[in-house]
Amino acid sequence: MDLKELGEFGLIERIKEALGGPLPDGVQGIGDDCAVLPQAGGMETLVSTDMLLEGTHFLRGDIPARLLGWKSAAVNFSDIAAMGGRPAGSFLSLGLPKGLDSDWMDAFLAGYKECSDFCGAPLLGGDTTTSQDGIAINVTVIGQCERGRSRKRSDAIPGDLICVTGPLGDSAAGLKLIIERNALSERHALSERHARLDRASQMAGQAGHDAEALVQRHYRPVPRIREGLALAATPGVHAMMDISDGVASDLRHILKASDVGATVRTQDVPLSAELRQVCAQQGWDAVTLALTGGEDYELLFTMAPGTEPSVPYYVIGRITEQKTLVWEGSSQDFMGFRHF
Amino acid sequence: MDLKELGEFGLIERIKEALGGPLPDGVQGIGDDCAVLPQAGGMETLVSTDMLLEGTHFLRGDIPARLLGWKSAAVNFSDIAAMGGRPAGSFLSLGLPKGLDSDWMDAFLAGYKECSDFCGAPLLGGDTTTSQDGIAINVTVIGQCERGRSRKRSDAIPGDLICVTGPLGDSAAGLKLIIERNALSERHALSERHARLDRASQMAGQAGHDAEALVQRHYRPVPRIREGLALAATPGVHAMMDISDGVASDLRHILKASDVGATVRTQDVPLSAELRQVCAQQGWDAVTLALTGGEDYELLFTMAPGTEPSVPYYVIGRITEQKTLVWEGSSQDFMGFRHF
Repeated sequence: MDLKELGEFGLIERIKEALGGPLPDGVQGIGDDCAVLPQAGGMETLVSTDMLLEGTHFLRGDIPARLLGWKSAAVNFSDIAAMGGRPAGSFLSLGLPKGLDSDWMDAFLAGYKECSDFCGAPLLGGDTTTSQDGIAINVTVIGQCERGRSRKRSDAIPGDLICVTGPLGDSAAGLKLIIERNALSERHALSERHARLDRASQMAGQAGHDAEALVQRHYRPVPRIREGLALAATPGVHAMMDISDGVASDLRHILKASDVGATVRTQDVPLSAELRQVCAQQGWDAVTLALTGGEDYELLFTMAPGTEPSVPYYVIGRITEQKTLVWEGSSQDFMGFRHF
Repeated sequence: MDLKELGEFGLIERIKEALGGPLPDGVQGIGDDCAVLPQAGGMETLVSTDMLLEGTHFLRGDIPARLLGWKSAAVNFSDIAAMGGRPAGSFLSLGLPKGLDSDWMDAFLAGYKECSDFCGAPLLGGDTTTSQDGIAINVTVIGQCERGRSRKRSDAIPGDLICVTGPLGDSAAGLKLIIERNALSERHALSERHARLDRASQMAGQAGHDAEALVQRHYRPVPRIREGLALAATPGVHAMMDISDGVASDLRHILKASDVGATVRTQDVPLSAELRQVCAQQGWDAVTLALTGGEDYELLFTMAPGTEPSVPYYVIGRITEQKTLVWEGSSQDFMGFRHF
């Protein structure tokens, strides 16, 4: 059978079947943002890993190396944030094609360091090797938290409010803008080889500024470390994860792991002013982008009504006993991003 | 500048420069087989990561998927063994080309599980993604040891005996046999498309058996977990690492990190009976293979004279105050395998 037929989650299930088995006491393996390993002194170690491949996750000409460096670190540290942990360090494997200029790598490393510094976690190791094809990047992050404090996907309870830490959809809209720019510049490539048409930067004043903000949100997601730590320190906060594939996909993980359902009020999904503006100009549906677009890296969490976390949040729905997912205010059944 | 001019170790230096900086107390970063992070309860966490790319580290048609699965895990767990730690778990990232058959993956996972079970360390997480080109594999392993017990490359002392845990060169000879077989079968590919000539399996009786043993040593290295734990529990044992690039290259890391020199008695380097036999038949120099061939994954360690570890070992030389590397019994200056 071709792997494509399995899909990403089918593939993960297959790996779990092949390699699963009983784990030592207190160890949590596949199935959450991080694995959890108990330490001797009342703490827990958190670990997560992500692979980014040229051609699949990024195009070398499209994303500046410095931003790719930031993003490679950020999407991983976001997994530590999603558990409510404090980052301790990272490990970077780089497969680099022969002939790659060292300037590219220097810029990549500078961006990687910026994000590592932001998260307070030094690079502790890695691997470098030659790639026969494109650039291959793998990042593993390690963090820790007090035992029993890490937040799992499986902790949602009927009656919980469903919340997010910030506006959604900006990253997905930023990606659409980047793709449009590239298509535009390709169409003009023959007649004006050196003129890189850039619809967003040609927009007058505020419009160009809005578009650029969305592009930056795609290139430079901010791991919500501080927010994750604050939420994990708040007793009423139950399930938590980061939004990498879009709420529509990610919320389903919480529902499945917690064996519950949910009602999402689509009109309550927070949208940035920039997203509203650009969607109005382009004729895009902001709510669809916010629910199905990935890579926002905001935190998605559930909490008992009346809980007051010390960080800003937006309530977008409620966990239900009935195991269905209802999108109130919309006739659509939103699906998130699928990898395979 | 082209990265190739930097070489692997130049590249690592560049990464250290770009991302280095003071580390928290007790944390050890880049520069040894594993990074070391202190835990609260008198233990230390060990972490190592390795990337294996198709076309650079393996050819899909050459290595059975099951053995590649074993090897991907083994080379990483070997780094935990090299510090004297106990493996706790692993993380597997897989970049898989579209159209790859799921049988390949099932066999890969079966081999990966075999090695994980051998090392007593379950798979705890990972990532799966689509690759546009070849297969990309990244493994991160985590382990632990009592604080102060992990063995570093920097702990060698003048007067120490230099030791290895087993015969060397088998893996390098196995690789040479595999390359020869492939060249042979390619030469015959046009006239006999389906006849995969296999010189080793055609060798009569013992000779074929010897060759096959070397090929297996290349495909299926055994992480020396038990040996590493025993050596770390022996007070007189000082520096330790695993042999991945060949003694000639790896010993230099110990000498540099410990700021010492060494004399190696080349006639004392342990050689298996199989290696001697095959080298005699093929006209290969066994000692050169043993010193410069990589991927043996035996442990290389130094210890005070009079120390009696509880595992088999072979003394191959002595650490000297004079910072030179002398190959006694040979006029060659052996160099190990270089990655770039």
